[in-house]
Amino acid sequence: MGTQPQLDALIELALAEDIGTGDLTTEALFTKPAQVTARFVARESLVVSGLDVAARVFSRLDPSCRFKAKTKEGAVVTQGRHLATISGPAQSVLTGERTALNFLRRMSGIATLTRAHVNALKGSRCRLLDTRKTTPGLRQIEKAAVRAGGGHNHRMGLFDGVMIKDNHILAAGSIAKAVTKARKRIPPTVKIEVECENMKQVRQAIAAGADIVMLDNMSPSRMAKAVQWIQGRALTEASGRINLSTIRAAADAGVDYVSVGALTHSAVAADIALDVLKQA
Amino acid sequence: MGTQPQLDALIELALAEDIGTGDLTTEALFTKPAQVTARFVARESLVVSGLDVAARVFSRLDPSCRFKAKTKEGAVVTQGRHLATISGPAQSVLTGERTALNFLRRMSGIATLTRAHVNALKGSRCRLLDTRKTTPGLRQIEKAAVRAGGGHNHRMGLFDGVMIKDNHILAAGSIAKAVTKARKRIPPTVKIEVECENMKQVRQAIAAGADIVMLDNMSPSRMAKAVQWIQGRALTEASGRINLSTIRAAADAGVDYVSVGALTHSAVAADIALDVLKQA
Amino acid sequence: MGTQPQLDALIELALAEDIGTGDLTTEALFTKPAQVTARFVARESLVVSGLDVAARVFSRLDPSCRFKAKTKEGAVVTQGRHLATISGPAQSVLTGERTALNFLRRMSGIATLTRAHVNALKGSRCRLLDTRKTTPGLRQIEKAAVRAGGGHNHRMGLFDGVMIKDNHILAAGSIAKAVTKARKRIPPTVKIEVECENMKQVRQAIAAGADIVMLDNMSPSRMAKAVQWIQGRALTEASGRINLSTIRAAADAGVDYVSVGALTHSAVAADIALDVLKQA
Amino acid sequence: MGTQPQLDALIELALAEDIGTGDLTTEALFTKPAQVTARFVARESLVVSGLDVAARVFSRLDPSCRFKAKTKEGAVVTQGRHLATISGPAQSVLTGERTALNFLRRMSGIATLTRAHVNALKGSRCRLLDTRKTTPGLRQIEKAAVRAGGGHNHRMGLFDGVMIKDNHILAAGSIAKAVTKARKRIPPTVKIEVECENMKQVRQAIAAGADIVMLDNMSPSRMAKAVQWIQGRALTEASGRINLSTIRAAADAGVDYVSVGALTHSAVAADIALDVLKQA
Amino acid sequence: MGTQPQLDALIELALAEDIGTGDLTTEALFTKPAQVTARFVARESLVVSGLDVAARVFSRLDPSCRFKAKTKEGAVVTQGRHLATISGPAQSVLTGERTALNFLRRMSGIATLTRAHVNALKGSRCRLLDTRKTTPGLRQIEKAAVRAGGGHNHRMGLFDGVMIKDNHILAAGSIAKAVTKARKRIPPTVKIEVECENMKQVRQAIAAGADIVMLDNMSPSRMAKAVQWIQGRALTEASGRINLSTIRAAADAGVDYVSVGALTHSAVAADIALDVLKQA
Amino acid sequence: MGTQPQLDALIELALAEDIGTGDLTTEALFTKPAQVTARFVARESLVVSGLDVAARVFSRLDPSCRFKAKTKEGAVVTQGRHLATISGPAQSVLTGERTALNFLRRMSGIATLTRAHVNALKGSRCRLLDTRKTTPGLRQIEKAAVRAGGGHNHRMGLFDGVMIKDNHILAAGSIAKAVTKARKRIPPTVKIEVECENMKQVRQAIAAGADIVMLDNMSPSRMAKAVQWIQGRALTEASGRINLSTIRAAADAGVDYVSVGALTHSAVAADIALDVLKQA
Repeated sequence: MGTQPQLDALIELALAEDIGTGDLTTEALFTKPAQVTARFVARESLVVSGLDVAARVFSRLDPSCRFKAKTKEGAVVTQGRHLATISGPAQSVLTGERTALNFLRRMSGIATLTRAHVNALKGSRCRLLDTRKTTPGLRQIEKAAVRAGGGHNHRMGLFDGVMIKDNHILAAGSIAKAVTKARKRIPPTVKIEVECENMKQVRQAIAAGADIVMLDNMSPSRMAKAVQWIQGRALTEASGRINLSTIRAAADAGVDYVSVGALTHSAVAADIALDVLKQA
Repeated sequence: MGTQPQLDALIELALAEDIGTGDLTTEALFTKPAQVTARFVARESLVVSGLDVAARVFSRLDPSCRFKAKTKEGAVVTQGRHLATISGPAQSVLTGERTALNFLRRMSGIATLTRAHVNALKGSRCRLLDTRKTTPGLRQIEKAAVRAGGGHNHRMGLFDGVMIKDNHILAAGSIAKAVTKARKRIPPTVKIEVECENMKQVRQAIAAGADIVMLDNMSPSRMAKAVQWIQGRALTEASGRINLSTIRAAADAGVDYVSVGALTHSAVAADIALDVLKQA
Repeated sequence: MGTQPQLDALIELALAEDIGTGDLTTEALFTKPAQVTARFVARESLVVSGLDVAARVFSRLDPSCRFKAKTKEGAVVTQGRHLATISGPAQSVLTGERTALNFLRRMSGIATLTRAHVNALKGSRCRLLDTRKTTPGLRQIEKAAVRAGGGHNHRMGLFDGVMIKDNHILAAGSIAKAVTKARKRIPPTVKIEVECENMKQVRQAIAAGADIVMLDNMSPSRMAKAVQWIQGRALTEASGRINLSTIRAAADAGVDYVSVGALTHSAVAADIALDVLKQA
Repeated sequence: MGTQPQLDALIELALAEDIGTGDLTTEALFTKPAQVTARFVARESLVVSGLDVAARVFSRLDPSCRFKAKTKEGAVVTQGRHLATISGPAQSVLTGERTALNFLRRMSGIATLTRAHVNALKGSRCRLLDTRKTTPGLRQIEKAAVRAGGGHNHRMGLFDGVMIKDNHILAAGSIAKAVTKARKRIPPTVKIEVECENMKQVRQAIAAGADIVMLDNMSPSRMAKAVQWIQGRALTEASGRINLSTIRAAADAGVDYVSVGALTHSAVAADIALDVLKQA
Repeated sequence: MGTQPQLDALIELALAEDIGTGDLTTEALFTKPAQVTARFVARESLVVSGLDVAARVFSRLDPSCRFKAKTKEGAVVTQGRHLATISGPAQSVLTGERTALNFLRRMSGIATLTRAHVNALKGSRCRLLDTRKTTPGLRQIEKAAVRAGGGHNHRMGLFDGVMIKDNHILAAGSIAKAVTKARKRIPPTVKIEVECENMKQVRQAIAAGADIVMLDNMSPSRMAKAVQWIQGRALTEASGRINLSTIRAAADAGVDYVSVGALTHSAVAADIALDVLKQA
Repeated sequence: MGTQPQLDALIELALAEDIGTGDLTTEALFTKPAQVTARFVARESLVVSGLDVAARVFSRLDPSCRFKAKTKEGAVVTQGRHLATISGPAQSVLTGERTALNFLRRMSGIATLTRAHVNALKGSRCRLLDTRKTTPGLRQIEKAAVRAGGGHNHRMGLFDGVMIKDNHILAAGSIAKAVTKARKRIPPTVKIEVECENMKQVRQAIAAGADIVMLDNMSPSRMAKAVQWIQGRALTEASGRINLSTIRAAADAGVDYVSVGALTHSAVAADIALDVLKQA
């Protein structure tokens, strides 16, 4: 679906590191052409993400493979559910199996963990955000997995949002100076967020015209106080070691967003397998 | 240390996805040249891995940065320990921070989890192996992290080892035919492993001259029986949903190796931060 | 100055297309090592831009070349002014000459044209913006040249700003629906601009909560009316066939920004030459 | 039509710099599949060039797009003329629009300027040549645009022709030595041109056996004298600040070629737009 | 047949170095579309190898070309035999001709030389191996040509086999220490070979548990003695300046393998031409 | 020596195919830093070529390696001659050894074979040319080796010379039409050669104004007749199965050039080894 040079570069790396000079086993044993069909199966309950990436792995490996999704990105499925089929030359299906699974399992693991956090926010108008704490090289697909799980994406990188922290404030002299200096240099389409650890900083950020105020490592009651004081003059984001036990309290403090690094840095692989059905 | 085109390609991807058209914040706020020194600090007990990768991130971002390791790959450190310093232009240090941390935290997370498994094997002559269930594109550095944690690497990919499974046996007609066919095609320097689920398959694998026999999803007592029957005619590997509770029993069954996919597919990031010390 | 993979890829393309299998002339005639120094000289009054790109051309061609800037990015210089020197092996200096000049002349041409527009805005608080009408592959350096000329950059591409136009409104059903839908999907750090051709659309955009309103192809008096009605509830941008004769009137209508595509799509090369001074 | 790795690399750069991590607007608003057809329309009289490049932009972005040219490379069209249609998924058409236009407008701008110069030569047997003063990375497509405009290409780069200038002569000792030395080293299929500023140099170049003599910055009458003296022993090229006012006089001096750098370094974009016709 | 990024990179290099900025001759002379069919013909007896590579050259150059093999990889053909046809646009067929032939001729040359060595081993159970003395960048296709000729591949590179030589032994202290140290570090699927120049080293290698013993530059009688002493405890490989005259004696000494560097470093091109049949 | 993206791409391919996921042997055995010096030694008489390429292999593998040439490109050396030294970390020197040797041996093999042909031309004014029958991807370094051996390069590829053959003539209608058509389209710096098999074609080529006439597969006496008839109106090249026995007769027929494909397609590796001198 369109050009995705970075994803393709990553798939290329992944196939190259696994296949190298060739899949010795299938090359030696599948010397006659044989077609197989295999099925991706959930071995536990999970939220699905990465079907299109798995499909792309096979289409780059061998364009004659046919991938057919049996469910949708973001679907909640139970153990035993059949997620997709892949059909094609036995050599290609077996050679691509591990790489496709490695993508699918990681992305579904992130989507599943995200959904747990989203569920904890049910009924609140607060939105869940991810962070830049993603696996190097997988930023875009991990952020897609967060969306599949029902979360929203914070900025994609350093280029589509300004985030002013301690060291930046030190360098500029004050929050006011930092916001003004940044506003001059950046495109008019990009907002400025200021990381605040206390009310004094919050007041300075609002006075400086920050678009978003991050309430960093504050207790829910202090956050509530800050949100009330701000009165909608800026968006608010709760951040800092928020987990499944504490996320609801943060949301109830009235912030617009909570951001959770663990969605991507502490997700574990969802259990998905590939079962070869039949050899034609 | 030598040419590492795949690692460099991954670092390039990781920097590109984070920096894109530029780090808006530091470019706007660090308009005057300023040198900083910052310190990587462990925020929990962990096994260190990835210092050289973090160093390479900065050297590719800006060759004038100086990275200095304060501990070694594989070291066990406690909370608060200072792992390395990075000095250089403030812009470069702050721009590279997240990417370097993302690498270092993931690799140290894997090394830490690996060490827990190695500890469970203490006193046994059995060795811990990783698998091919790694994050796509990060195979080599995740396997390096396993080594840092005290584990050993199974084959790097499909090219440096033969692994004969169900579908391969079906395609070849029998274990014997599969082993013979593979032996003819592969370099003499590469070994053949056969995945066995029961004693019948074990006997066939040994008869066929397999170099390594994988005992897949067997109970410790069945594994012990298999190992005794094999009598050193092949190496043995225990595999299949082995975890910290069950790994010792598997090892005590007498196998040469146990392999654990979770080392890489279910490791979570170790908690490491970068503290900017001073601005010169 | 940090990693710039896209710029380096462009320089590589530019050197490759010019040098191909080798610079026949210098390879044939400079068979003995010889050092030369050469001088970049302005042959007309201009605003300088691209010195660092010219330096990078030579450093990639031959790391032993030494480039020394004699003026700064954005400086206004008169005819005859000496902009920089390049010293190094005669072969390398002569081989890189044309590519370096092609970059420097185009960027300085853009900076010079931008400065003319900026001058027309003197005394106004309105800022000059560029557009996405840049030479393919040169987006970032052409936008750098606009900054050198005193202009500001609009969004860098499709990824760091939302711009809702006719076709998007048609697809979403209304301006209100389009803004709401976009707000849900995009990072909280990114703003939404709506292109408006009349007051009715302006009113809808403001009601929908647009961050920026583009006043497209309106007369100065209609723009003034729109700006007054908006009363600071959104930023305003004048756009559409604005040139050196009309830009001041647009600015005086009170808009925050005027954007001018011609800065990059209709700039001509500034006249700069490389004079070889001496052969050592 | 065949492999064009350099063009594809440039298109990839151009799409990447514009799309980056995604077209936020169309991704947010075109969430349901929709097909559109759009039309490239000339907004002024111009000479068409770059239709195949525009087609390639869309086919690389999304192979399901269909591009249909309605006129030919090099055609002279008047305002309002419909140049081509593009049909495909709305997302892809809108995402590729700007990049395709940026190519098409620049190339048509060059073709249009070239045609003006060619018209000035009508009735003369003298041919118009371009130079190496092209936009970095766009050499081949800008030279194709010159051909579309009716001009001819001088050498493509440093590798397919020898051009001996002052510094080369200095290095070799004399014109005679330079020509002899070059002849020995270069393929027999490549010619040698010598840049001459006066009759003395012309005489030396002819004596040395130069294949082409460049008459640099000479007045028409001095050129005429040189051409008569040469008597067909070499091809002749007039060069140096020739423009639309002076080109005919240069041609009438009898030279075989006139070369004009402005064709590529001072062309401005032709005015072409993309109108979305209907959404299916 | 699956993803082959290294082969494609090589083909890309080969086409780029030949075509550069364009095939001047065919572009100038085939201005009207014309379809041709051409035939690859053996001009001497040879063993065929490289048909799929030749096909890939054309499919990358122009996907509309149709390549049809008329014989199989490894076939022995006599002079005049028709090996394959290529049909497509005249421009593409003529432009790709030389590159396709250069691949096909080199690979067939290697296959032919290999077959001569294999014939010399007829009736022996000893197998012929290649080495790492291949043309840089062509490792995989030259090793494929060896297989087409009936030979077997030794390790593909430094990553899929351990080969302990003099300098390694010096570094480790002894053969025993070297083997033990290597065994600890490498994947369990990879074997260790020790290069031995005399019986003392052979005894040490066997004692150390080497998997393969290379008998380097030994006379047939000394090799026979070594093989008898080893008694199947390790595989044996004869190596060192073995040629068509001496290979049989080496094999008759009882070794499992003989390796011959000349298969790849001293093969000459097989004589194959492309005859254009007709122009449609 | 300047930018050589194609050579670097080839070296990268060559190192990658040999090293892959790592040099298992040296990584396992050289765990402590050790410096070595090694010497490239000629094991037979040969003409040296490729020292700079070998140096570049090591510098790309490990910039801390130091390569020191002990002789020059094109030198004739006898058996035992020391050609260069390489010093650096033992791991790097041993890992790069084979790749460096594979380049050096092939290039020296070509230079040696070329010199034999050049010697056969001694005293004649006829020059030896290579062809496009080079190893795919190695065109430029094989042509450099020909120069090292005393030969001259024919065109580098399809882009720097026109060569009109049978199929082109058929397509154009006649030799006259083909030459005229080509002349119109190509840069004025490039010459046109026509392949002629008989005097009739020679006469047509001269009449059409060909710059070079190739006398293809003609006997020396027919060539002599053609050369006399041409009387210097075009350069002449003898081509077609010319070897060491026949080259002198061809030259004595008076042609300006003889071209010999075997220089590159049938050269065998020169025997060069790397001897490790000492470990520091």
